[in-house]
This record gives sequence, C-alpha cells and structure tokens, in this order.
Amino acid sequence: MDSTATLARFIASGGSPADPLGVPPSVPLTVPPAVRHETKRGFLNALGCAIGGANDAATELLWTTLQPFAGAPGASLLGRSERTDVLTAALVNGYATNILDFDDTHLATVIHPGPPMLGPLLALVESHPSSLPPVSGADLLDAFLIGMEVACRLGVAIGPGHYARGWHITGTCGVVGAAAASARLLRLDAERTAAAIGIAATQASGLSEMLGGMGKTFNIARAGSNGLQSALLAARGFTSSARALEAPRGFGAVLADGLDGPRLVDRLGSHWEAAANTYKPFPCGIVLHPLIDACLQIGQAHAFEADAIDAVEVRVHPLVLVLTGRTDPKDGLESKLSYTHACAVALVDRAGAVAQFTDARALDPLIARTRARVSSIVDQTLATDQTLVTVRLTDGRVLSQRIEHAIGSRDNPMSDRAVQAKFLALATLTLSAARAQALLDACWGIDDLPQASALIALARVQ
Amino acid sequence: MDSTATLARFIASGGSPADPLGVPPSVPLTVPPAVRHETKRGFLNALGCAIGGANDAATELLWTTLQPFAGAPGASLLGRSERTDVLTAALVNGYATNILDFDDTHLATVIHPGPPMLGPLLALVESHPSSLPPVSGADLLDAFLIGMEVACRLGVAIGPGHYARGWHITGTCGVVGAAAASARLLRLDAERTAAAIGIAATQASGLSEMLGGMGKTFNIARAGSNGLQSALLAARGFTSSARALEAPRGFGAVLADGLDGPRLVDRLGSHWEAAANTYKPFPCGIVLHPLIDACLQIGQAHAFEADAIDAVEVRVHPLVLVLTGRTDPKDGLESKLSYTHACAVALVDRAGAVAQFTDARALDPLIARTRARVSSIVDQTLATDQTLVTVRLTDGRVLSQRIEHAIGSRDNPMSDRAVQAKFLALATLTLSAARAQALLDACWGIDDLPQASALIALARVQ
Repeated sequence: MDSTATLARFIASGGSPADPLGVPPSVPLTVPPAVRHETKRGFLNALGCAIGGANDAATELLWTTLQPFAGAPGASLLGRSERTDVLTAALVNGYATNILDFDDTHLATVIHPGPPMLGPLLALVESHPSSLPPVSGADLLDAFLIGMEVACRLGVAIGPGHYARGWHITGTCGVVGAAAASARLLRLDAERTAAAIGIAATQASGLSEMLGGMGKTFNIARAGSNGLQSALLAARGFTSSARALEAPRGFGAVLADGLDGPRLVDRLGSHWEAAANTYKPFPCGIVLHPLIDACLQIGQAHAFEADAIDAVEVRVHPLVLVLTGRTDPKDGLESKLSYTHACAVALVDRAGAVAQFTDARALDPLIARTRARVSSIVDQTLATDQTLVTVRLTDGRVLSQRIEHAIGSRDNPMSDRAVQAKFLALATLTLSAARAQALLDACWGIDDLPQASALIALARVQ
Repeated sequence: MDSTATLARFIASGGSPADPLGVPPSVPLTVPPAVRHETKRGFLNALGCAIGGANDAATELLWTTLQPFAGAPGASLLGRSERTDVLTAALVNGYATNILDFDDTHLATVIHPGPPMLGPLLALVESHPSSLPPVSGADLLDAFLIGMEVACRLGVAIGPGHYARGWHITGTCGVVGAAAASARLLRLDAERTAAAIGIAATQASGLSEMLGGMGKTFNIARAGSNGLQSALLAARGFTSSARALEAPRGFGAVLADGLDGPRLVDRLGSHWEAAANTYKPFPCGIVLHPLIDACLQIGQAHAFEADAIDAVEVRVHPLVLVLTGRTDPKDGLESKLSYTHACAVALVDRAGAVAQFTDARALDPLIARTRARVSSIVDQTLATDQTLVTVRLTDGRVLSQRIEHAIGSRDNPMSDRAVQAKFLALATLTLSAARAQALLDACWGIDDLPQASALIALARVQ
C-alpha cells in the first residue's frame, strides 16, 4: 500500500485521496463546522502559547545563540520585535509555543499537535513566494489542520509501542506533520509533497529522556523547522523516497513496529483525528491536570492556611508517577513534571498558572515543605484524567475531592470562554490588552481574513 | 554506568577518562604515530571528497535552496568561492563530502566517519570564538579524531541490530560524533560536552530508505551541522540530560537494543576504533568494490571490445544484492548502488572513477546493454570484500578473476600514494594543480601548522 503517496495526494489536493497528482490546493478544505471551530481553538491556543513563551529564558537562550548564524529578516518572532530568516523563526517560535508546557494534547497519541505547525506556517505566511497569491486566513487554517492531522494520524498508525519505547512522539511525528503543513502552504504538487514527507521522515527524532529539560521543547521546535526545511527543499526539486513512511527501512519499520498503512489513510477528508485535540488549562504535564483540578476545588470549597496542611494523599493512574514522578524539582522546567509540586502550588497558591512553575516557585521553602507532605497511591482502576485527592489538616479536618474528568480533558473540555481567557492571559505577557484583544478577534474571524499576515502584524511587538 | 559523562570527560580532557571535570583541552591528544598517520589519511581523504563534491548538482541544489535563509559569512564553502554562516557551511560541506559516495568506511559499523566531522570542524576553524587562541593544525586533527572515535565507538556499542533495523548509522552516530568534535574544538568542559552529546543524541536520525537518493547524503550532512549546533548551544548553557546515551529512554534504548556502556568507553585513549577507517578507491557503495577490482583486473590482463562481452557472472556476498541490487539505475546516484552498473563501467570504461557514476553514464545505451548481461550468484561463504567474476566473450574466451580482499579493504588498504592520487584527482576538479598540491602538502604537515585556517585558504576558490 502506497501510504505516503496517498497521504501526499490528499495534502496536495485537500480533497479526496483519489484526486490526481499535481492538483494545486487552491480549493479550500471542506470540513464540518465543528472541526473548523476546533481548529480555530487550536490555532488560538498555540498562538497564545507562542506569544506567552516568547520571553521565556530558554527561548531567549535559543534565540541569542542562533542569532549570529541567522539569515536576513524574512519572518517575525512572535511576541517580540525581532525578525529573522524563516527557518530560525520557525525554530524559535516553535520553541516558544511549547516551552511553558501549556500547549495542547492529542490524548490518543500524546502528540502536541499545534507547536510544530505554528512556527513554520507563520514564517511562511510572511515569506510566501511572490509567484503565489498571498496566504489567506483560510489557507493558513487549512494548512494548520493538515499538519496536525498528518502528525496525529501517523502517531495512531505506528501504535503505542513507539511512544512506549521512549520516542518523544511530537518530535518524530511532528516533523512529518510540519512538512505536510508547509507543503500545503507552498502549494506543492503530490509528488513534491511526498518528497517533503520523505525528507522529513528521515529527520524524525526526539528522545523522551529530554522531558523535564530544555531539550524536550527543542525536540518539538526542531520538528517544526526541519519539516519546513523539508518542504522548501522538495519545492526546489530535492528528491526522496516516495515510500518513506511504509518502506521496509522507512519510518514505520525503523521507528516503530511497522506502519498500519490503511489506518494512516482511513477516511481521509471525512474523519478528522486532529479534531480530538485538547488544550491545557495548566502549564505542566497533562497527567498532573486532575491533581491540580482537585486541589483547586478543595481550596475553593474550604478555608485553610498553607501551614495547616499536614498530609496530602493522591490516588493516581500509574503513568502519573512514570511521567511526573519528580518529588523535589530543582527548577521551573522540572517542576512542570512533578506531581508533588503541582499539588503544593495548587493548595498553597490556589492557582495553576505560569507563575506557579517558575524557578522561584520550585525553590520556595513553603512550597518545598508542602511538596514533602504529598504521598501517592497508584491505582490502576483510574484513568489518566481521574484522581482522588485527600488533604489532612493539622486541625483534624479531612478534605477530599474526586475528579472524574479533569478540566481540559476530552470529556470536560475547556470552553471557548476559557480558551479565550487563557489566550489573553498569555498574550498580555508581552502585548497590550488592546492588541491582544484585536488578535483574538482576528483569530476567530480567520476564515474571513484576506491576508493571514494581518495576524502577524498584531502578534509582534513593534 | 555513566557512559555519557565518562565519554564527555575524555573528550574535554583528551587525557584519561578519570581526569576531573572542566579541564580545558589545551593538552594535545597523545596517540600512537600509526593512529596519527591514519587520522591524517582520513582527513586528507575527506577534504578531497569535499572539494570534489562541491559542484555536484545535488550539492548545488542544497546550497541554492538554503542560501536565501543563510546568515552572514562566517565560513567558506570548500572548493567554491562563497562564504556563509557556520551552520549552513557545515551542512553544505558535509553534503559535498559524501555526495560522490567516495568517502570512507569504518567497516565494523558501516559508519562513514569523516564527512560528519569535516564540515563542522572547518566551519569552526574560521569562526573560532575570539576569546580562544586560534585553532592549530594539531587541534583540528585532534578534534577530527575525537569525533570519528566517538561515532565509531557508539556504533560498536549499540550493536549490529541498529543498522539491521534500517538506521542509516552515519546519521545516527555521526551527529553525536560531530557534537563531540565540535565540543572539543570549542574547548567545552566535560559538563557542557555531555550536554552537547545529549542535544545531539535527541536529534539522531536517518533512514536507510534514503540510500540511493539525495536524502542519503542529507542524513550525513545533517548529522554534521546538527552536531555543531548542539555544541554551540551547549557552549551557551543550553542544558540536556547528562545520561542521554545510556538512560532508559536514551539513545541506546530507543534507537537500538540498548547500549553496551562498558564497551563504549573501553580503553578510551589507548584503543582507537577510528584507526580502523578505510578509504574508498571507487565512488560507489563499498560492497561493489571487489567487483570493480575484479573487472578492472580482467580488463588490464586481457584485450577485448565492449561489444564482445556476452555474459558476466558474479559470485557475491548476500549483502551485495541487499544493498546494491539495483539492476537498471536511472541516474548517477542510483548507479552508485547498482552491482550491474559497477561491473559494466569497469569492463567497458576500464575505470571506476567519478566519471563512471554520472547521470550520463547511467543512461548510456552500451552501459545499459552490458548491465543486462550481468547475473549474480549469492555465495554465503564469501566475505564482503571477496568476489569471483567470470566474463564470457563472444569469441568463446572465459576470463575469471577472484578477489580475496578488495583494494581499499582493511586487509588491502590504499597506499599513501593512492590516497594522495585520489585527493589530487578530486581536488583538481575545482582547484588548480598547484593549489591542490600545496593543500596536499599542508595536510601531511598539519601537525606543524600554527593556524588551521591556512588549509581553508587553500581549499576555497578565490
């Protein structure tokens, strides 16, 4: 089965996979309104994260290290004033989108679909080939959806063994998705789109060993810029295998236990895997969200001082300890993968926002003391979005909260209002309130934007 | 076992792995004269390939595609007149070094050790931090050896299952070696060297599916520039796991069936795995070399016209058909992995040089007819450097040649004179004979060069 070619035809045409080779994607995607709306939420969420993470210390370090080697200005850094070449912009903007650990999650694969797509696409919007018409808002959203769809389908088609082995799946599948998204915006024909997928597939990388450090987000950012570069090379005639995903020494066989080709392309254009995306209400590992949700509810329902917390017992899915088992994080990045820290800040600060996962908060003595009072019971009957938290106070009170579906999960999604509030909180870290609001409005109206570059004019600091 | 840290201490100190953290590598490596000489041969070989491949069509395509995004001139393109930023220079020069398939091979791992190291190191020589003394010829050769050594040891330590799975091992191990080489030249301490290794390890990639196309060399070139970028990031304080190679979700466990940590660092500083490097006498897949050797010897010993070749029967190791089983290559790149093409050009042209593996030669009717007369017998008793070739002529003569160890193999290595001749043939594809000779002399005298940048002044076209 020629999975790569089938996928490439779909990307290039935007229609059915049976469309002939080389149809330019001038025809907008036809997607159900609910999928379109979910894509807008995802775009808004990713854009807010990119602006909010623009001045993070790690983003700053990446940018200042690479700036001396960067090319002439072709694209903007979001939430900042600098412009740089499109590949560097894609890398830095992608980094900013994920660094707060506040982005999005396709729960079935644990892929973060937005960050690898946002950087390349916004860079391309600004440096679009003059031979093509300007990118409209609808074009941009189509490409964003295509990229996420390809990454998520690929993640599904290689099965859970890939992630279990230690692959950071947003890196490995994200680079292919980013190539697809970029190819779409560059209007590559199916043959060149397949080449872009191949050049991306041979760069698929990312170790889960990087989780909890600067390298984790680098995996994701690299996926975006490498995917963009793959499409730019393919556009110029750089060739690749036309069977890079399904070949015996291709992506599926080498990085996983094979590729389920039929599943990869099943119901292309009618079923949208990317519509199952979810958005993080808290900037930390997603398996911590039920814990924070529970602790915040306890704090809202009961009055108590932080010093009065005697013991915190959490009953959790096994993955919570596997992924976020750090009990004594040394900095903000580590605190994002610490279940004890998540409980401590939610109970002490009564919040779970960006300010709760900083270096300062990780090193705070009261938070550290509270972390030390948290103990865990692994309960295999719980789902990853469930938990039971019990807080014992020094005055003898016992406060419990059970979470059936954590806020932000598929069964308890963030409302549009919550997604908006999150966007504005992030965007106003660097933009004025008026500018952030204008950008929010433009994103909701993205389908009517004649030129997507209007978004970037609002998203950069002038 | 802390393999990554042990390796990093060795790279940073150049002495024994027991040296304390943070020793600057101002002390030259102490290596036996034979290893030093082999390293010079390897350097000379890689440099010749880089200059010879500088104007290849695929190199040109890569460069012209990336040029619009490249930064201010910091390093030279070898064998050309342009200068560009160090990361782009590392990529393009690395690409040129491998594109002719004429480079080198560490036979135990099938790694091409030279290309991923040459690009980054020569780029760094030109853009060395002004806070450090200039890079001497000896410093450069030390770093070249370190990078090859790390790549080859890593390849050995992850076992043959890695390559068998379909990983293009020069990509996966090369990026780590390139980070090590770059870290050495940047005089990073052991901690930052370990970070560089980690940032590189999480970018390890490259599918064997790319063999026979432009993507194969891209895997190798990307390894070089990504390794360099890893070291530049680590130098600025970008962090990573300190156990990226040996951790449960690190390089060895994720990309192979685990890492043999003790083997990775066994006899560091006394045993030199990179000294087992070999150099290609013919610009094509190495398993084709016995065939070309045999056919050339038949042509030297007997007079016959090309039209008189009735049948060619080759008896070969099974890998020959696995790796180079293409019988009807469509272009030069494919012809480099075609056993029928290798026999045809060696018998018809009585040569096995760059000119025999071009698009024109792949499409030549006489060559195509001769290819069609070649048949194979797989013989498991043969080694990969052995073959038996039998040519039947229309006049009834039967000409046979058995090869015990192909020229260029470990047991029949190219002489210094042959390495020199190969260098001059490649270098004079773009440089004058006088310049090529001066560069050759400078390379043999590299240990006495106060500034390695003198090599680059000779290797670029002015």
